[in-house]
Amino acid sequence: MTETTSSQILRDLIEIVGAGHVATGPDAAPWSQEWTGQTQWTPLAVVRPADTQQVSEIVKLANRTGTAIVPVSGNTGLVQGTVAQDVIMLSLDRMSAIRELRADARIAIVEAGAILSRIHDAAEQEGLIFPLFFGARGSAMIGGALSTNAGGSNVVRYGSARHLCLGIEAVLPTGEIVDLMSELHKDNSGYDLRDLLIGAEGTLGIITAAVLKLHPKPLAYATAMVAVPSLNDGLALLNRLQRETGGAVEAFEFMPGIFIEAYLERYPEARAPFDTPHDVNILVEVGALSPRDATPGPDGKVPVAAHLEEVLEGLFEEGKLLDAVVAQSDTQRQEMWARREASASVARLRPNVVDNDIAVPLDKMQALVEGVTARALEIDPGLRPICVAHLGDGNLHFAGWPSTEDPGLQKAVKEAVDAEAIRLGGSISAEHGIGLAKRPSMARYKDPVALMAMRAIKQALDPKGIMNPGKVLPAGDQSVPPST
Amino acid sequence: MTETTSSQILRDLIEIVGAGHVATGPDAAPWSQEWTGQTQWTPLAVVRPADTQQVSEIVKLANRTGTAIVPVSGNTGLVQGTVAQDVIMLSLDRMSAIRELRADARIAIVEAGAILSRIHDAAEQEGLIFPLFFGARGSAMIGGALSTNAGGSNVVRYGSARHLCLGIEAVLPTGEIVDLMSELHKDNSGYDLRDLLIGAEGTLGIITAAVLKLHPKPLAYATAMVAVPSLNDGLALLNRLQRETGGAVEAFEFMPGIFIEAYLERYPEARAPFDTPHDVNILVEVGALSPRDATPGPDGKVPVAAHLEEVLEGLFEEGKLLDAVVAQSDTQRQEMWARREASASVARLRPNVVDNDIAVPLDKMQALVEGVTARALEIDPGLRPICVAHLGDGNLHFAGWPSTEDPGLQKAVKEAVDAEAIRLGGSISAEHGIGLAKRPSMARYKDPVALMAMRAIKQALDPKGIMNPGKVLPAGDQSVPPST
Repeated sequence: MTETTSSQILRDLIEIVGAGHVATGPDAAPWSQEWTGQTQWTPLAVVRPADTQQVSEIVKLANRTGTAIVPVSGNTGLVQGTVAQDVIMLSLDRMSAIRELRADARIAIVEAGAILSRIHDAAEQEGLIFPLFFGARGSAMIGGALSTNAGGSNVVRYGSARHLCLGIEAVLPTGEIVDLMSELHKDNSGYDLRDLLIGAEGTLGIITAAVLKLHPKPLAYATAMVAVPSLNDGLALLNRLQRETGGAVEAFEFMPGIFIEAYLERYPEARAPFDTPHDVNILVEVGALSPRDATPGPDGKVPVAAHLEEVLEGLFEEGKLLDAVVAQSDTQRQEMWARREASASVARLRPNVVDNDIAVPLDKMQALVEGVTARALEIDPGLRPICVAHLGDGNLHFAGWPSTEDPGLQKAVKEAVDAEAIRLGGSISAEHGIGLAKRPSMARYKDPVALMAMRAIKQALDPKGIMNPGKVLPAGDQSVPPST
Repeated sequence: MTETTSSQILRDLIEIVGAGHVATGPDAAPWSQEWTGQTQWTPLAVVRPADTQQVSEIVKLANRTGTAIVPVSGNTGLVQGTVAQDVIMLSLDRMSAIRELRADARIAIVEAGAILSRIHDAAEQEGLIFPLFFGARGSAMIGGALSTNAGGSNVVRYGSARHLCLGIEAVLPTGEIVDLMSELHKDNSGYDLRDLLIGAEGTLGIITAAVLKLHPKPLAYATAMVAVPSLNDGLALLNRLQRETGGAVEAFEFMPGIFIEAYLERYPEARAPFDTPHDVNILVEVGALSPRDATPGPDGKVPVAAHLEEVLEGLFEEGKLLDAVVAQSDTQRQEMWARREASASVARLRPNVVDNDIAVPLDKMQALVEGVTARALEIDPGLRPICVAHLGDGNLHFAGWPSTEDPGLQKAVKEAVDAEAIRLGGSISAEHGIGLAKRPSMARYKDPVALMAMRAIKQALDPKGIMNPGKVLPAGDQSVPPST
């Protein structure tokens, strides 16, 4: 892009949103790197529209001038999905309204820049939940969560972001606004554009608003830390608990002994889950949705907790558990969750963490953990693995501290981990998306006909290749406009 | 198409599948009309491939010669989605295998021609269910159910067809096979092609196989017929029951008094649900997933049934119910379901039934029923409405017997019903799809930007317009190849 064109584009952007809402140079710093600090870039400008109409005008301008545009909301991504060197970044942070929350219809209508924890709070006030919970919820925004089809700790019961969304509004690469703001539970009128835009990481358009599905807040929780001999025993425990509770398991999270050790290094004041360390530690949470399961009985015990204790005691007597602790207070429950939610900060205790986000069928989890660990250690025998997993979803976050600064070796570890997931019928991205970071594995492992169809769709909706170019689809398919 | 070309295509089809599997003339009769008999056509030929490879070869042939191709499975559709005048019909009925059923992983891997009730039976043998239940399940096949994103009576708990599917295999309009047979609960590797093909009614490709999600079979059911003063009271009842049972409502079906009357005319030997007729009759079913809710207590009562009785008694004392009967045996439960499942045969007691399949937000159902009834009667004061509804999903099947043979008047009734659904924020197709029948309403009411995006996707994946041409998207967008 010539300098004249750039300054003309800046003037046009200011015309659309006002001078106070276009940041360049040092003012653009907050949008110039991933939150992990691992990747930096210099955007041409960061533009912060106030509403969907302004988003539409900005995208029309980008389309007319062939300027690439990268949407960003909370900037909590993990796959270099918002890298934006020399191009326009469009930040949705000013579009943060919760427009409407109708408790009877169990929906919330929100703008893309609404922060997850604000949506959580608004729902809670009505005795409802929006069950998309993960560590970054205090800064992650719903637009990015939908664009990456984010998951988190409650997918086992409520599904991923796409399952929590009834409708969206989006600005397509032409700048036109598509209204799919359905509040319906059934709507078979044409192709499922909603699910196409969800998970497309901003490459097919910018999600600007959404109709979210809310769920009743469990009336009580029963939370426990359980140690079992192996991950296969963990799967048996999950199936048993689902059967006993009628599918009421809200979370089923795996923390290996090696993670607990790293956690205690990072937070020396914290407590270990058990007096004796175990290899396979699982955080179990069961939710009571009916008053019958949540109302304390004559003995003062809440039925859902009493029942969980009873099931765990039975399993312990059968020799299927090594240890178990049921939280006796909300403080104890918070302590259990604090360990799991510290995973990102623990992993980043050292700057050059190698991490992956892989999924396999549930019955392959033990093979996966064993396989990836072995393959990673073959490549870097000094690597220290610190993985955690959403065990109930078959989703492993394999992370490790390499023993070397050699980026080639680190790359080799990541690739070996992806290869092992694929070998077990899995995916190279469970819940983080592809961005730039996982394109090599996309190229290597995704069905080539699927890639061809994705490219055809991208070309059809974004013929100029201006929307978040270079992301998701492996190279050779998108025209990144020249930028000098 | 010239006669020479047609006979060459027939020879090529026979080459692919064998002479015994290409039907023409009278042999094609079973595929030459909708099951309702309302629409007839004469296909060029019906070809019945044995496997995905043959489907691929047939579609490649169609692509090469520019011949249109219409996929069909159980032929139980309701929107003229398989009309195939002078073109190839591809029937999936020979591809009916249930390839694999893994109870621990709760999945079934099936071919597109597997009949729903066979999948139901296979799942039940493992104590599981595939909860896609509707009247035509004895002949409907999974390929068609996915292609139309079918719904049915249990969507309130388990979702529609797309929510019951983890992965698909499909043949794209180029003839290439796309492998999306994921068994994963989380997979964010690129665009959601699965959900794009599901519900596309065969216009973007042919679904040939699927990985289906199975659910635990409820250990006991409690089923009741309830009469309430109004549909708004019905919604309050649903919310109350969901709260009391922790979301265990499996079905919540509305049958107005006018439907019960028509039912008793059609089946004179059948019984009415109540001694006194009521306007708003609801079939409620609650499922017990946990042993605690399903194991008879000291009094011999199954807790889930005792609990439903208790809740209904409380509501009756509060004056919120007019009447209620809880099924005391499986025979009584079957009798309750028989009424609801007779709706299609009742509606077709007279040949020229006018029917719609509309959805609105749950809190608009009463307004919808009142509105559509009033508008239909304005146009045809002699019309006799016989509607039923999946009340728990906000989905009304408005049907009526017109007092006139005038097709213009019948069309006007249908259009007025769609208009009323749209006015209340609803959809013109809840679970049947668009086909040919609903294209006028698609053209009129669907967001024009959404239509534009759908056309771009259709053009990108099927540039020759050979896949089920003319369906779903309103005219002017697809090149139907000339057929003489």
